[in-house]
Amino acid sequence: MAERKLMKGNEALAEGAVRAGCRFFSGYPITPQNEIPEYMSWRLPEVGGTFIQAESEVSAINMLYGASACGARVMTSSSGPGISLKQEGISYTSSAELPIFYANVVRGGPGLGNIAPSQGDYFQSTRGGGHGDYRVLVMAPNSVSEMGNFPRLCYQAAEKYRICAMILADGLLGQMMEPIVFDFEPIDPATLPAKDFALGIQEGRSRRVVRSYDLKPGFMEKHVEKLMHKYAQVEANEVRYESSMTDDAEILIVAYGTASRISKAAMTLARKENIKVGLLRPITVWPFPMQVLNDLASSVKKMLVVEMSAGQMIEDVKLATCGKVEVLLHGRPAGGIPTETEVLQVIKKIR
Amino acid sequence: MAERKLMKGNEALAEGAVRAGCRFFSGYPITPQNEIPEYMSWRLPEVGGTFIQAESEVSAINMLYGASACGARVMTSSSGPGISLKQEGISYTSSAELPIFYANVVRGGPGLGNIAPSQGDYFQSTRGGGHGDYRVLVMAPNSVSEMGNFPRLCYQAAEKYRICAMILADGLLGQMMEPIVFDFEPIDPATLPAKDFALGIQEGRSRRVVRSYDLKPGFMEKHVEKLMHKYAQVEANEVRYESSMTDDAEILIVAYGTASRISKAAMTLARKENIKVGLLRPITVWPFPMQVLNDLASSVKKMLVVEMSAGQMIEDVKLATCGKVEVLLHGRPAGGIPTETEVLQVIKKIR
Amino acid sequence: MAERKLMKGNEALAEGAVRAGCRFFSGYPITPQNEIPEYMSWRLPEVGGTFIQAESEVSAINMLYGASACGARVMTSSSGPGISLKQEGISYTSSAELPIFYANVVRGGPGLGNIAPSQGDYFQSTRGGGHGDYRVLVMAPNSVSEMGNFPRLCYQAAEKYRICAMILADGLLGQMMEPIVFDFEPIDPATLPAKDFALGIQEGRSRRVVRSYDLKPGFMEKHVEKLMHKYAQVEANEVRYESSMTDDAEILIVAYGTASRISKAAMTLARKENIKVGLLRPITVWPFPMQVLNDLASSVKKMLVVEMSAGQMIEDVKLATCGKVEVLLHGRPAGGIPTETEVLQVIKKIR
Amino acid sequence: MAERKLMKGNEALAEGAVRAGCRFFSGYPITPQNEIPEYMSWRLPEVGGTFIQAESEVSAINMLYGASACGARVMTSSSGPGISLKQEGISYTSSAELPIFYANVVRGGPGLGNIAPSQGDYFQSTRGGGHGDYRVLVMAPNSVSEMGNFPRLCYQAAEKYRICAMILADGLLGQMMEPIVFDFEPIDPATLPAKDFALGIQEGRSRRVVRSYDLKPGFMEKHVEKLMHKYAQVEANEVRYESSMTDDAEILIVAYGTASRISKAAMTLARKENIKVGLLRPITVWPFPMQVLNDLASSVKKMLVVEMSAGQMIEDVKLATCGKVEVLLHGRPAGGIPTETEVLQVIKKIR
Repeated sequence: MAERKLMKGNEALAEGAVRAGCRFFSGYPITPQNEIPEYMSWRLPEVGGTFIQAESEVSAINMLYGASACGARVMTSSSGPGISLKQEGISYTSSAELPIFYANVVRGGPGLGNIAPSQGDYFQSTRGGGHGDYRVLVMAPNSVSEMGNFPRLCYQAAEKYRICAMILADGLLGQMMEPIVFDFEPIDPATLPAKDFALGIQEGRSRRVVRSYDLKPGFMEKHVEKLMHKYAQVEANEVRYESSMTDDAEILIVAYGTASRISKAAMTLARKENIKVGLLRPITVWPFPMQVLNDLASSVKKMLVVEMSAGQMIEDVKLATCGKVEVLLHGRPAGGIPTETEVLQVIKKIR
Repeated sequence: MAERKLMKGNEALAEGAVRAGCRFFSGYPITPQNEIPEYMSWRLPEVGGTFIQAESEVSAINMLYGASACGARVMTSSSGPGISLKQEGISYTSSAELPIFYANVVRGGPGLGNIAPSQGDYFQSTRGGGHGDYRVLVMAPNSVSEMGNFPRLCYQAAEKYRICAMILADGLLGQMMEPIVFDFEPIDPATLPAKDFALGIQEGRSRRVVRSYDLKPGFMEKHVEKLMHKYAQVEANEVRYESSMTDDAEILIVAYGTASRISKAAMTLARKENIKVGLLRPITVWPFPMQVLNDLASSVKKMLVVEMSAGQMIEDVKLATCGKVEVLLHGRPAGGIPTETEVLQVIKKIR
Repeated sequence: MAERKLMKGNEALAEGAVRAGCRFFSGYPITPQNEIPEYMSWRLPEVGGTFIQAESEVSAINMLYGASACGARVMTSSSGPGISLKQEGISYTSSAELPIFYANVVRGGPGLGNIAPSQGDYFQSTRGGGHGDYRVLVMAPNSVSEMGNFPRLCYQAAEKYRICAMILADGLLGQMMEPIVFDFEPIDPATLPAKDFALGIQEGRSRRVVRSYDLKPGFMEKHVEKLMHKYAQVEANEVRYESSMTDDAEILIVAYGTASRISKAAMTLARKENIKVGLLRPITVWPFPMQVLNDLASSVKKMLVVEMSAGQMIEDVKLATCGKVEVLLHGRPAGGIPTETEVLQVIKKIR
Repeated sequence: MAERKLMKGNEALAEGAVRAGCRFFSGYPITPQNEIPEYMSWRLPEVGGTFIQAESEVSAINMLYGASACGARVMTSSSGPGISLKQEGISYTSSAELPIFYANVVRGGPGLGNIAPSQGDYFQSTRGGGHGDYRVLVMAPNSVSEMGNFPRLCYQAAEKYRICAMILADGLLGQMMEPIVFDFEPIDPATLPAKDFALGIQEGRSRRVVRSYDLKPGFMEKHVEKLMHKYAQVEANEVRYESSMTDDAEILIVAYGTASRISKAAMTLARKENIKVGLLRPITVWPFPMQVLNDLASSVKKMLVVEMSAGQMIEDVKLATCGKVEVLLHGRPAGGIPTETEVLQVIKKIR
């Protein structure tokens, strides 16, 4: 466990999922996440798991529905366009309360876009790109180490609440190599408690049904209220964030993922020039760290959201801060990656 | 034109699109919007148009991409699950700057859900269910008359800005019958100005290319900045709303679509009891009437968002009001429809 | 009509279909027949017809089912792999007694094969690659002129018997250019008699149903007996062939399509050397010219089947000749094209 | 092994495949063969195998291509319409020389037809419903016992020659129950010799490529000649048939599958009336027992082909007998099942 290993982000993510007990992966190729299915294609058979390159993205997500309904720890991955195609399926698994895990290694969009790293899928991830009232727990790693260690956390939450959990990464996190230490022992899914919803050979138990619909008047409304109750618990219990030098900060940068690393470097540069900059990095972007940002809104003078998009997370920061503080944006969409000096210049301009 | 006709909402929507010049429809059946493709299947041939029942929702949206690229006024329609499947295509047309028009006659979700009316697809509609930075102009009718007259407005905006425009309705608006007077003369698309992006037989002009990607470093970022500039113009020019009795209102209901009709009836009941209730009804939900709500936040005591969902538009109301006023929710998800007396009770409780 | 025009075989085929009244084409691209859909894509709109590039070969054939059920003269085209994917649909239209027309511009197979001309799809064409008892009328042109003039014959037979009719060509016939004179005036499908099975708006007539199944015990058997009765009529009435120098022939070459042109040249060479060679060229390969071959089996000494395949039509020649004469094969599969001197050598060897 | 068990034909087929080493099944549901995928869905996991309900018939056959290329013993099954959809894939595996095994539990056709037993897919099975020059080894069981024991023979032949091998059954054989004794010990595929074409992790060996095409001029022709050489070997070595009372027969019934059981009963009835009837039952219908039928053509007076189709195998009987004997047909298409007394009447009429 304590072994330190140099890995690519996408491979760390795949290995982390397998260690966390993933035994079923279905997917369809798209750059910049192809290392994930490639890794799974030989790794899963080693542990008795199943890898399927599906006929389409739509097929892949629906196979997840089926495999999850049978109790397996399952996974799919894709990038922007592919994740869009999966939105129907994600809504279905959410409604059927099936725990699934997936990753979006975001590329530049909209459309076919380009294969540069991006954070343009934040709205889709946090607001339910699919139809209906549902939420997905979204973890946003900013290192290869987190790419590898977050899948376990996703499975835990997905199964605890019977929801979808995803990792929102980007092409840079997927492609870069860093040392990783897995912070947990490999999990044998056979040792996990049986899931009381899982289908299979029925032996001396009552019949189980997994479905995402009910036409009985009023049933679905009660069902969604039940879902909302679960989501409220997730919001109460599962918020994660990392704060840096926020105590005396006058300018607070809010950034996640790759943008948070750049922002941290910019913060260091700023501190060298005695500019009091802090950083609040959401680790879960849904549930979003509303309370801590609301608190910080009382102590800082300005907030600067740094995003590799045209401005999406900024809505959550505004919702969190309720007008208490000015919230500014430095956004670079569709493959634009800010540099630390560029962010420093923005800080100097706005302070 | 001044003829008054009794029509079903879905049929009014279809007829309105044809009158507005729609000559290409591709779709796939799903309740509660099936009257739209059924109507189009015989109506479009009457005007020399083309109706295609596509092989799938994904197929339908991609056929729209093609037909729009050739310069036609095009349309598709579906309900929740089908619209989710179209998210990739919507992102593609947005990136390719193709004007398309579509309608979501929302049913209860998430998942397969039920076929009752709902407003649970607000996030998907306004936050881009697809990937990447893009926006869709979203009109929310609340009568059969608007179902029939909004398609023209959608085409106008879609073509002016080369964006997607949609109608966000629900099963109740689609199924109910009301008299309608079309407020415009039928448009012959042959009389519309030629589109300078439209593909076709190339005669003495330079080659045109329609695409949703570019791999040249930096190109997509500039492209998305251009898109953002367009969206900012849409936000500046295209906001529509209806306000009722807001001047002296102490409690302001914010509601769209079917919920706005119920809310208006509740307002009337409240006024009879001398409770000062007003109603702000967004007609476009993107762009959202931010300014008027911000203004009203200074004059009213409380805002009550009435939604047929677990609470989605409320985020926009909070973003608009910046913490200036308490914003409360009465939400009925997944097919729940509030009654006017029910809303009245809520008003009494919160005032 | 009497105009002489230089055309590519694929284009002649497409133009011939349009002149014969085709107003609906759905297809999917594959070499070496892409000129057909390309031509249709701009030609059909000129005459008020509809061209659809379908999502798949399966989609294309099923769209034909629908359009034919509505009474249109319809067409699709493909090459080997694509035609294989259509076999289910061909069986369905045959069972539903819908007149459809399609073309197979054969390439080298099996599998993805190559794009060279071939005659390897003879079995599939004449024996029903699809399931169940049904037959397809198969015309085998050997010139650009026939490529252009046979579609009309196909439509006539398809509609007379309510069966499928196809043109079995090959990549060489599709790609080569020759002068063509269309031997019929363009047909306006609006002037054709109404089809009494055609669906559409029901006005003062009883309901019509088009379907390819019936679960009532015994019904399907009677239905297939009815089909068989039709096929027997086709065999009685629709056989076409061309015979050359058969009167005194000692060696009879049997060849169709491109192979028949090469064989004719070889015959000429042989005659110059006083070798009495004749040629029987089936123009329809189903129904196959059984009787004339049976008759010739009494007068010739040997028959030589020349095929651009490993030997498929030879079975029909053997069935026709009932052991009366030795039947030999010169077959060149998967893109092999015999030369006239090569065939001459074979003749010399076997005589 | 010697255990006697009562099984349904479809289940015997599935169990027989698993015992023969099948470890991968992909399929799509269609009556009357659904017991096969259902059985596989729980049976394969028991032996470490993989069952996939694919997105479509096309998907299922292409997954077989992939799994076979990796060296597994693979299987799919369907009925008429589904097998038609697989024809492209069957042609591809044949060209790629991948050993695959599949079953067609034939229903009444053409089209959607009905779900009664039938033999209407004989042409498709024996003439290559797909494109190009290729052949499939076709075994035609006539009992539950053969349903269970033939898969092993199919795998042996498929792997020996690297071809497709199929079982041509019908709805009656699939649905009826009979005792079965498996005549072979379960085979552990891990003990089978490694396949020298199989893809996988490359360890100290040269790269392998599996493909169904080659664009190098002349290559495909040589490739198909190689295939033809293999098929000639199959014809020389793998013919199987069963003959009953042929020594003194004046009327020879030729029938396979279910029709052969009925014919045998009719033969018994006829013999009781001193009518000298014999039965030749092809067990492989490709390769077809040409020689034995040619021999019998010299000794019998008439041949009667009894088929549950409009007459398809009769072509092979005619090809085998070269006009030496009159060949008559008693055919019952699309779900018609002859009775033994009905066949007896035919015998009496023709003798």
